[in-house]
Amino acid sequence: MTLLQSTTSQYLINGSSEAGLSPWDRGFAYGDGVFRTLKIVNGKPQHWQLHYNKLEHDCNSLGIVCPGANLFLADIDRLFAQEQLAVAKLIVTRGEGTRGYALPVLAQPSRIVIKADFPDYPAANCTFGVRLHLCHLRLARQPLLAGIKHLNRLENVLARSEWSDNSIAEGLLLDEAGNVIACTMSNVFARFGTKLMTPDLSQCGVAGVTRQFILDIAPTLGMIAEVGNIGLEQLMQADEVLICNSLYGVWQVLELNQHAWKPQETARELRKLLQE
Amino acid sequence: MTLLQSTTSQYLINGSSEAGLSPWDRGFAYGDGVFRTLKIVNGKPQHWQLHYNKLEHDCNSLGIVCPGANLFLADIDRLFAQEQLAVAKLIVTRGEGTRGYALPVLAQPSRIVIKADFPDYPAANCTFGVRLHLCHLRLARQPLLAGIKHLNRLENVLARSEWSDNSIAEGLLLDEAGNVIACTMSNVFARFGTKLMTPDLSQCGVAGVTRQFILDIAPTLGMIAEVGNIGLEQLMQADEVLICNSLYGVWQVLELNQHAWKPQETARELRKLLQE
Repeated sequence: MTLLQSTTSQYLINGSSEAGLSPWDRGFAYGDGVFRTLKIVNGKPQHWQLHYNKLEHDCNSLGIVCPGANLFLADIDRLFAQEQLAVAKLIVTRGEGTRGYALPVLAQPSRIVIKADFPDYPAANCTFGVRLHLCHLRLARQPLLAGIKHLNRLENVLARSEWSDNSIAEGLLLDEAGNVIACTMSNVFARFGTKLMTPDLSQCGVAGVTRQFILDIAPTLGMIAEVGNIGLEQLMQADEVLICNSLYGVWQVLELNQHAWKPQETARELRKLLQE
Repeated sequence: MTLLQSTTSQYLINGSSEAGLSPWDRGFAYGDGVFRTLKIVNGKPQHWQLHYNKLEHDCNSLGIVCPGANLFLADIDRLFAQEQLAVAKLIVTRGEGTRGYALPVLAQPSRIVIKADFPDYPAANCTFGVRLHLCHLRLARQPLLAGIKHLNRLENVLARSEWSDNSIAEGLLLDEAGNVIACTMSNVFARFGTKLMTPDLSQCGVAGVTRQFILDIAPTLGMIAEVGNIGLEQLMQADEVLICNSLYGVWQVLELNQHAWKPQETARELRKLLQE
C-alpha cells in the first residue's frame, strides 16, 4: 500500500508525516469525527476563523475536544508555505479506542491535515453558471447529526455516483419529504426578488461556512436572508438559484430539472465579497 | 501515535502488519466501506460462510469488489492460529481515492483484518438474561443503506453513549416512526406463542448473520419466523424478547422500559443450535 496518494499530496497525522493511521482510530472504524475543506491562497487558509469555529462547533456536537487552532495553523504552515493555490482538508476524530461503540474513557483526538491540488474547475462555471443533476437519493433525517460535517458521508458518495456527465457540476439533494436540502458538496440559495433563502438544515445536510458567510453578508447586497423550508417546485420558481462552497465560492445554477435560468449578477457579487 | 492499540491487538492491512492506513482511504474519509465482527474459536472463524457471504453482499451493495475469501482466511490464520477465543473484525473499503465524493476510476479495495480480545460478558447474561436501555435517538430511514453493515456508524456511537450503567447490556433503537429496529450492536426477536418475529430492516438497521441464522433455524424449534414491522407497544406484549449477535449469540431480555419478563428457554436453545 502506498501511503502517499500522489506526488502532489502530503499529510500530517498529529503533526507527523511518517506514520499512517491506526485501524483502531474511530474515524476509520465508525466515521466518528468531523472535517473541513478549505482554500489555501499564498500559503494561508482563507476564512480561517470561520472554518476553525465551525470545526470546533462540530467537534463539540459529537463530544470531541477540538485540537487548538495553533496546532492546525502550524501543520498548515508546514504543508502549504510554498503553495499559491491548494486545498487543505482538516480532520478531527475521537481518536483510537478499543472495539465497540462505547466512547473510550481516555480518548486522545486525532488531528489530520491533508494537502491536495486545487480542483481544475471550468472557467465557465464562474463566467456563466452550472448545470445540476436532480439526485434520486433522498437524504435521511437525523436531527442529532444534521448540520455537522461529520465523517459519515455515504449518502454523498452514493448521490455523487448518480451522474458521470462532466458538463454537470453538482447534484441537488432533497430529503424524504421533498424539501430541497443541499448539493453533494455545496449549499444552496434561492433568490425571490430581494429575499435570499437557504434551506433549513435542522434535519439533514451540512451547514457550511460559505452558507453562513452569505447569510451574514446578504444585507450588503440589499437582500434579506432567510432560512426555511424550500420545496422543489418553489425552488424552480426562484428568480435565481445559487450554490456555494469554500473552494469555488459561488456559482449560479443555469439548468436543473429541464428548467433554465439566464445568467445574472448575484454569484459574481458574492464571489467578490468572499475574496475581500 | 501508537499503531498498536494494545499488546493483545494486532492487524493486517492488505496482508501487511507494517503499514498504517492512508488518510486518503475512503473508508476513513467517508466511511466508504463495510465490516464484519466475528468470533474466533480455536483459531477458526465461526459461521465463516455466512459472514463472507454477507461481507460480499454488503460490498456489492456499495459497488465495491469484495476481496476473495482465501485472502481473508490467510490473514485470519496468520493472526489467530494460536487463539482459543478472540474477535476478528474484517473491513473492506473502496480503497484510496483523490479528494471528492466521486468514485475513483481505478479503486483498489482495502482489506483490513483486526484481532481483538473476546469481550468479558457477565455469565448472567446467558444464565438469566439482560436489561435494555430504550434509546432516545431514533434511527434515520435510508433505504439505500439499510441492512448494510457499512462504516457510517455515528448513530450507533451516539445511541451507545446514552447509558453508562454497566448493568445495562444493550440499547433498543426505534426508527422515526416508532418501529422497533435493532439494538446498537444486536438484532432483535420477539416471540408471540410459536411466532418468532424480527423487525423489517428495509429502511434502517443492520441485517446481521445471526439474525439470518435464527430466521432459517426457527422451524427446528417448532417456531414460525416472520419479518415485519413491530411497534414498541407490541414488543412489550411479546411472550419473550431476544437479542443476538455473532459474538455472544443470543440473550433473553429480562427488563425494558419498566417491564420485566421471566427467564425462558428459547435463548439457551438458540445458543446451542448456533454452537453446533
